[in-house]
Amino acid sequence: MFAATLTKYSRSLPIFTRKNSQYVSTTETNGTREITLNHEKTKNSLSLDMMSDLTEAINRNKDDITLRAIVLSAKGNVFSAGHNLKELQSSTGLEQHKLVFQKATELMKSIIQSPVPVIAKVNGFATAAGCQLVATCDMIVCSDTSKFSTPGANFGIFCSTPGIAIGRCMPKSRATYMLFTGEPITAREAYESGLVTKLVPADQLDREVNEIVEKIKLKSRRVITLGKQFFYKQIDLDLLEAYKLGEDTMVQNINIDDGQEGIRSFVEKRNANWSHK
Amino acid sequence: MFAATLTKYSRSLPIFTRKNSQYVSTTETNGTREITLNHEKTKNSLSLDMMSDLTEAINRNKDDITLRAIVLSAKGNVFSAGHNLKELQSSTGLEQHKLVFQKATELMKSIIQSPVPVIAKVNGFATAAGCQLVATCDMIVCSDTSKFSTPGANFGIFCSTPGIAIGRCMPKSRATYMLFTGEPITAREAYESGLVTKLVPADQLDREVNEIVEKIKLKSRRVITLGKQFFYKQIDLDLLEAYKLGEDTMVQNINIDDGQEGIRSFVEKRNANWSHK
Amino acid sequence: MFAATLTKYSRSLPIFTRKNSQYVSTTETNGTREITLNHEKTKNSLSLDMMSDLTEAINRNKDDITLRAIVLSAKGNVFSAGHNLKELQSSTGLEQHKLVFQKATELMKSIIQSPVPVIAKVNGFATAAGCQLVATCDMIVCSDTSKFSTPGANFGIFCSTPGIAIGRCMPKSRATYMLFTGEPITAREAYESGLVTKLVPADQLDREVNEIVEKIKLKSRRVITLGKQFFYKQIDLDLLEAYKLGEDTMVQNINIDDGQEGIRSFVEKRNANWSHK
Repeated sequence: MFAATLTKYSRSLPIFTRKNSQYVSTTETNGTREITLNHEKTKNSLSLDMMSDLTEAINRNKDDITLRAIVLSAKGNVFSAGHNLKELQSSTGLEQHKLVFQKATELMKSIIQSPVPVIAKVNGFATAAGCQLVATCDMIVCSDTSKFSTPGANFGIFCSTPGIAIGRCMPKSRATYMLFTGEPITAREAYESGLVTKLVPADQLDREVNEIVEKIKLKSRRVITLGKQFFYKQIDLDLLEAYKLGEDTMVQNINIDDGQEGIRSFVEKRNANWSHK
Repeated sequence: MFAATLTKYSRSLPIFTRKNSQYVSTTETNGTREITLNHEKTKNSLSLDMMSDLTEAINRNKDDITLRAIVLSAKGNVFSAGHNLKELQSSTGLEQHKLVFQKATELMKSIIQSPVPVIAKVNGFATAAGCQLVATCDMIVCSDTSKFSTPGANFGIFCSTPGIAIGRCMPKSRATYMLFTGEPITAREAYESGLVTKLVPADQLDREVNEIVEKIKLKSRRVITLGKQFFYKQIDLDLLEAYKLGEDTMVQNINIDDGQEGIRSFVEKRNANWSHK
Repeated sequence: MFAATLTKYSRSLPIFTRKNSQYVSTTETNGTREITLNHEKTKNSLSLDMMSDLTEAINRNKDDITLRAIVLSAKGNVFSAGHNLKELQSSTGLEQHKLVFQKATELMKSIIQSPVPVIAKVNGFATAAGCQLVATCDMIVCSDTSKFSTPGANFGIFCSTPGIAIGRCMPKSRATYMLFTGEPITAREAYESGLVTKLVPADQLDREVNEIVEKIKLKSRRVITLGKQFFYKQIDLDLLEAYKLGEDTMVQNINIDDGQEGIRSFVEKRNANWSHK
């Protein structure tokens, strides 16, 4: 009902008119940027060009306060097949190999450092660096027919960097299975392993993602950004260091405008009027 | 049957006669201290007074060897609604804001540093710092109708410190969902995410917690304390450092009285006679 | 079908002819070393001798490229009952106590540092250091009647070192339950907690483990070793350090022979011909 009300004001426009990416299509509707991997003929492989376009689509105007959430989706049955192995052939040279993995880290960092939540909407097969990309998103909603794998070793390239992402998202006993056997796990197994946030029938995927996005949009953008940055900072600290920094973060949060507005609106039993700044 | 035998010797007395807290009620029975958040009109909010009384109730006589376990429970449908937002209004001043979060960290530390296991018994809604409180307990038993949320961003205050606790207790994909959407998760989802230890029908909650407590009480208090301290110390170390320290801890454990008594009782096929010292 | 084809070439020979361990029996078949704890009368307890023989069986010829996977199994209903408490009695002396835990760490390190994946095949009860042993394996496949516990505190010796392993393999709320109550968890609970990789009926245990092993054997040994070493290295680093090191590891992987062969075989749409070096 709430979503229906919002829809009245919705606009859905391709936003990157000055650049037509052949790898990525992007729309922005009511503050939600949906970035779609759109290169089925390479199974949405993370070529250098694809990674550049994705990173740019995530980072563009990232500090514009009208941007409230990013949804990462893909066209076709393969969400992404991971790195483009042709770019890793011996003939392409060491410097290019380095560049591929620097770009991949940059892409992952763009997600983690994005001021807004990034949600993977998966309806298909996410594999190798494609699985890393999904696992790096803040939240992951997938259809019940989706699959996930890290099969790099089948092609002589162990999924070491994808292992960084999945090793932090699921139990060791499951991450090692994916990495050493290269076998896919089902959406159900991915849910049971904590890799994904929500598992739904394919026809409810958009609705589930929209519900998450609408919940995010009810909040102050500034507060979400502050909270996201702190979450990823503290998770690498030991417990007492995390609390020490956490206390400062809470005090800081309270004393920004939207912190005080939130408290006032609660005390006055009214809706908050966020500045988002 | 075993519990029934023990019951013969049970006594259930309010222990804090010198101080009547209006926030917390406490009973101590056969070595089990049950601390009940008892301020329904504020939804058991973690006001400065509530936090002080809770911390004091956890720490009081903590080195008394007759104390064997602490159960944290709550009166009413809301286990705890988290911080009292009125105490975080601008008018209360920066020093009070700092104090609130220092007190909260102190409360969390009192649980982690308690020499005995602390078990949350949840039958209701644990939210924001109330969810942090629950997640910080060593074990969490909840009824199947309980719920958990970290909705601070709804009120302009991101649940950054609760995120420290839940980010270490459940997969990233689930913690971020709670933090960014503010939506509650069900008891079933909390179990599937590893946040809770056991999930039972409400009418079996006491029984389940009692079974855990009775198992703890069969052991040496000294040994449980040593083990608890080491567990939280090692979890922040890297693997090889943890093993290095772990070896020393095992040798130390063996050579305390109850270590040797435990081994003797095993070899002699008899019940151990613990000194608890 | 694939496995059936391989079976034609199989040989199953006891490999340690020069040393007949009374604790451990070992066979090697088609690159799979199965090491079986074989001392039912002590419930496969991890005595100093047992630990020495296990460590030696894991480490022997570990750099022989024909060795591709290690399976750790046990004879009898008890996978392993953990340390031999008789060796920890006061009369045995402090130096022996130290030795016991040094040997245990050495055994755990032999698994983590083994160049090939180590898979626990559990059909029974793994307890205390026996549970630690299982949890330390890269993957754990268990029958649905298996059980797991860390009951050391029952005998005055808290399972501090087993807690290092299980505390890194399952949620805090579950590890603490095992450590503080000493109660066993079922195979189903172990699966739900992420401790085990796969849960199958007992009569499918061999088949499930074989399928994992066959998948590993399709890959380059060198690549699996590189990937395993990196996985355990990065998991103790913070995220950005891990990615920094990960980039280097990927570039290194691509430029070893089997990295390039893998990519070539992919581009040329043919099976890879691994050197394993």
